[in-house]
Order: sequence, then C-alpha cells, then structure tokens
Amino acid sequence: MAGEGDLKLLGLLVSPFVVRVRMALQMKGLSYDYIEQDVFDKSELLLASNPVHKKVPVLLHNGVPLCESQIIVQYIDEVWAAAEEGSPTILPAEPHDRAVARFWAAYVDDKLFPAWIGIIKAATEEARAEKTSETLAVLAQLEVALAECSKGKAFFAGDAIGYLDLAVGCNMFWLEALRRLFGVELLDTGKTPLLAAWAERFAETETATKVVPDADSAVEFARKLAARFGSASPAPVAN
Amino acid sequence: MAGEGDLKLLGLLVSPFVVRVRMALQMKGLSYDYIEQDVFDKSELLLASNPVHKKVPVLLHNGVPLCESQIIVQYIDEVWAAAEEGSPTILPAEPHDRAVARFWAAYVDDKLFPAWIGIIKAATEEARAEKTSETLAVLAQLEVALAECSKGKAFFAGDAIGYLDLAVGCNMFWLEALRRLFGVELLDTGKTPLLAAWAERFAETETATKVVPDADSAVEFARKLAARFGSASPAPVAN
Repeated sequence: MAGEGDLKLLGLLVSPFVVRVRMALQMKGLSYDYIEQDVFDKSELLLASNPVHKKVPVLLHNGVPLCESQIIVQYIDEVWAAAEEGSPTILPAEPHDRAVARFWAAYVDDKLFPAWIGIIKAATEEARAEKTSETLAVLAQLEVALAECSKGKAFFAGDAIGYLDLAVGCNMFWLEALRRLFGVELLDTGKTPLLAAWAERFAETETATKVVPDADSAVEFARKLAARFGSASPAPVAN
Repeated sequence: MAGEGDLKLLGLLVSPFVVRVRMALQMKGLSYDYIEQDVFDKSELLLASNPVHKKVPVLLHNGVPLCESQIIVQYIDEVWAAAEEGSPTILPAEPHDRAVARFWAAYVDDKLFPAWIGIIKAATEEARAEKTSETLAVLAQLEVALAECSKGKAFFAGDAIGYLDLAVGCNMFWLEALRRLFGVELLDTGKTPLLAAWAERFAETETATKVVPDADSAVEFARKLAARFGSASPAPVAN
C-alpha cells in the first residue's frame, strides 16, 4: 500500500500485544520497520516514545509515537480505513458490534493476560494451580462470548477475522507454550470446544501465519524470565 | 433530540463512571430513564444486563445492554454522531488526537481511580499516606498531559470539553470529598496549577453543573463504605 508514511514498530517478538499490532498492520497490508527491543535494557527511543508506561508496542507514524496495543490497532483502523479498495476493516461497522468487540477485548487484557502470565510467575505449585484454574475460567467465559459474537460463523467478527479475533488470538501461542512448559491443557476441546476449534482456524489465517511466532520462542522467553526472576522451575517439557 | 430510541441507565449517583456516561448523554442532549442501583443488593436487571462484571453503569438502548463507561461513551458518540446539527462530538475527529484521548482516559482508569479509592480503603494512616502520594503523582502526570493536549486552550479537547475532559472530570468531585473526609489537598494549585484551574473551569460547564453531584453525597457514601467494610475512621471533616 502506498502513502502510508513512515512506520516503525518498537516491539518484542513474543509479546502478545506486539503480535496484535503486527497482525493489524498485516491485515491492512502496511509495511513498517520492525525494531526489536531488549525489555531488560530499554532503549532511549522506547523510553522517549512511551515515557508513561515504558512498554512495547510503540508504533511511530512519521515519528509520532502511539502506545497501548488496543489504541494502536484502532488508530491503524481509522487512518487506513478505506485507503485501498478491499482493505479489510478491523473494528465492526455498527456501533453496537464495536462496543461488544471493545468490551471483550478489554476483558481479555484485564482477565486473560494476567491469569496466564500468573502461571509463569507463580512461585509455588499451589499458586500455579490457582492461576491455571483462573485461566480456564476466563477461557470458559470467552467460549460464551465466541458463541454470542460469531453467531455460528468462523470467527468472532463473522466470516473473517476482526478486532476481537486479534485481541484473543495474540494470546494463543502462549497457551501452547504453557502446555509445553508446565503440561497445562488450557485450550481443552472438551471444555471449550468452540474456542479450541476457533483457535485452530485462527492459526491458519494468512494474518496469523505471517505474524504469530512459534510457541518455542515463547517457551524460550519464559525460561529466560524464570532464570532472571527465580520463579519455580518449569516442569519437564511436554512436546 | 428525537429518534434516540428508548434509553435507560442503570447507575449509582456517586460513581465517577456513571457520572461520565451521564455527562456524555447530557452533551448529546439525550433524554433517558435513570434507575439508581443498590450496589450492596444488586438488581436482577443489573445482573442480567452485565453478567460478566455485575457493575454500573449499564446503558440499555432499546433494551440492549452496553457496559463499561469508556465503551458506552464511545457508543453514544458513534450512534448520535451527527443526529442533530450542532450536536457536539465527544471524541476528537483526527485519529492521532483520538489515540491520545484514549491513551490518557485509559491512564485515568488504570492509575487515578485505584489511587484515590485506595485513600478511602486504606486500613492504616500509613497506607493512606502512601495512596495520597500515589494520587498526587498521577495528578502530576495529568498536569503534563493537560499542557500537551490543551495547547493553552481551556480544556483537554481545546475550546470545549471532550472525551478526556469527561474521563478526568468525573473524578473531580471525589477529590473534593477526600479533602473533606481526610484533609488531603489533592488538587494543589501550587503543584498542579493547570489542572486545578482546569477543574474549576470544568465544574462551571453546563455539562458538569447539570450532572456532577455535590461532594457531600460522595462524603456520605464514603462513610457508608467505611462503616460497612471497617476501614480506618475518617479524620474530622474539613469544611
């Protein structure tokens, strides 16, 4: 796509929030310079671009920084709304559908992310079991959301992926990484069959295949975190 | 305004999040049925309308529930975007300005609200002092945000109030209530002069005068909370 201006993304390849933004850029067919950040030794550019939270992702559009993944995705959707015929929209068109997508996306960031990251950070097996239950409860709620939003279609947004698919989908490779690290079965085809089938379809979309990293890279990053912060050693790796 | 359909708001008069939504409805000139909720004995309608969070505000538009104040305000702005000539917009028109307004509104809900509610919930004087410092630090950050966003104009959004003014402004009567309850000076004209002057201007807008409750009602509610949950007794009331 021409005329997008200069786009730079400050990211961390295994961050679900960075993956979310990269999927939005991919959906819109935008090219950008990707600059991997060391989260243990933050760059001057990151600190200057996001002085409030000091976190990735940051999208620099013609040098102007945008922060917070959901806000960046909405920005991308608004700026490149109809720049090219056939360019997909990310948020739904109708205000009610937009409100529903925003509601569940907020739920994902408020509930799903803290629950699964808690499995990694848990200092004891008991704490890990508790965070595993919490993650499963959140996924059970998302099973209900998927049934309501998709109305029997393939994705949260209908026949093609949209805002909420990106919001949920960017977490999925981490669920697989947690299975490999701790043997926890989070996407259970018995308990959340719709969500498990959706996750498979989502992983096969062009957007996901071009952007989402392999679960092994998340496993490796989690081991680095554990070594650094001394949380409980991961159990033997499941395959 | 005609043609708005049936609007019902489930609220709590002293909730900043409810005040935010009521200000948005006021800005758009929308009429609605207001139904006060007992947060200690939640109604069937509230539980059925917001089964995930079970919280006010909930806006029922022709019977369909919308939850979460920022999402409701955006919904109102999108549905009644240009329904009547001269109807003000709440979010800015430009994608970058919208992203900035959303960024700081999220900051308010993530940082400002938990900090000042912590002053009420604090079980010890030490904990209260810590939460007071935290609130002051957040307000100092919002002083910077105001300078950047307003560019010398009267409000965050420019010459008239907008999304971020509502997001910040709905917390202000509580800061005054905390002064009366605990003698804490949070809006300090020495430390955050721009924000203090903005708060005075904001309180004088038609939107605020028609919607924002008196700080005394917040004082009374805080005393009810303290009696119920047994946090430290408020210090003698400042005037």
